[in-house]
Amino acid sequence: MNNNLEQLYIVYPVGKVVRAAGKVTIIIREQFRPALRQLDKFTHVLVLWWADQHDNASSRSQLQCNPPYAASHLTGIFACRAEYRPNPIAVTTCRLEAVDEEKGVLQITDIDAYDGTPVLDLKAYFPVCDRVRKAEIPNWLHDWPEWIPEEGLGLE
Amino acid sequence: MNNNLEQLYIVYPVGKVVRAAGKVTIIIREQFRPALRQLDKFTHVLVLWWADQHDNASSRSQLQCNPPYAASHLTGIFACRAEYRPNPIAVTTCRLEAVDEEKGVLQITDIDAYDGTPVLDLKAYFPVCDRVRKAEIPNWLHDWPEWIPEEGLGLE
Repeated sequence: MNNNLEQLYIVYPVGKVVRAAGKVTIIIREQFRPALRQLDKFTHVLVLWWADQHDNASSRSQLQCNPPYAASHLTGIFACRAEYRPNPIAVTTCRLEAVDEEKGVLQITDIDAYDGTPVLDLKAYFPVCDRVRKAEIPNWLHDWPEWIPEEGLGLE
Repeated sequence: MNNNLEQLYIVYPVGKVVRAAGKVTIIIREQFRPALRQLDKFTHVLVLWWADQHDNASSRSQLQCNPPYAASHLTGIFACRAEYRPNPIAVTTCRLEAVDEEKGVLQITDIDAYDGTPVLDLKAYFPVCDRVRKAEIPNWLHDWPEWIPEEGLGLE
């Protein structure tokens, strides 16, 4: 491996998840709000968030797990979406309900992140980048939905 | 904003992109190879990679751009997939051709990242998490494909 792989990189929050009054929002820090321009023209957005509860040596050294939905199948962390992983960056595709660029508020249908979770990045969902026509998954997951549910992915 | 948002977080490469002999692979560092277990049961994987050429103050402070595919539309960075952004983490969904867990080699159809690019994470593509049944994009992108092309997203 080359030296490049000995490096560390720094990331920082551009906003956070806020759950209040029955709504789920992402609040973007003031200096990053111009980056929201035109996002309201998309229906969906990838939210990259920092699983801060797993930013510790134990969670970051976990490489395999028995996922709750398939407990008999020992699975590599790269083959699942658990938040304990070497770099605890989660990616959730969320439906956009509203975008207020000036106030830095995105209202989303839901997200599987707790109140206060740091958000690292937003990326508009581009079908040409993100939408696989035919994606196969293991047999033991054959009864899972083929699409993101309309109500979004939440905490349960 | 709470103190949580004043933090910095550390990420590091778990592998890198290698382009050689007409093939595109991701080589996983030895200590992370157990995390590949069962990944071969999936057809697609999200690759989170570090856009190291844009890990500089200039690229990381860019908040808007005129994308090459829509030069007349000033767009926020969160509404596009450019690699210059506050946290230069790119997400590319790749088709898996083969996974060698022991050697730490993933052969993929293609990726829009240069040879040597650091890879931060891999996540199996789960339709229930990643596949939007009906995703709308702006009018000026109406002629874009509705799916990831079979040949994958590459450098051109």
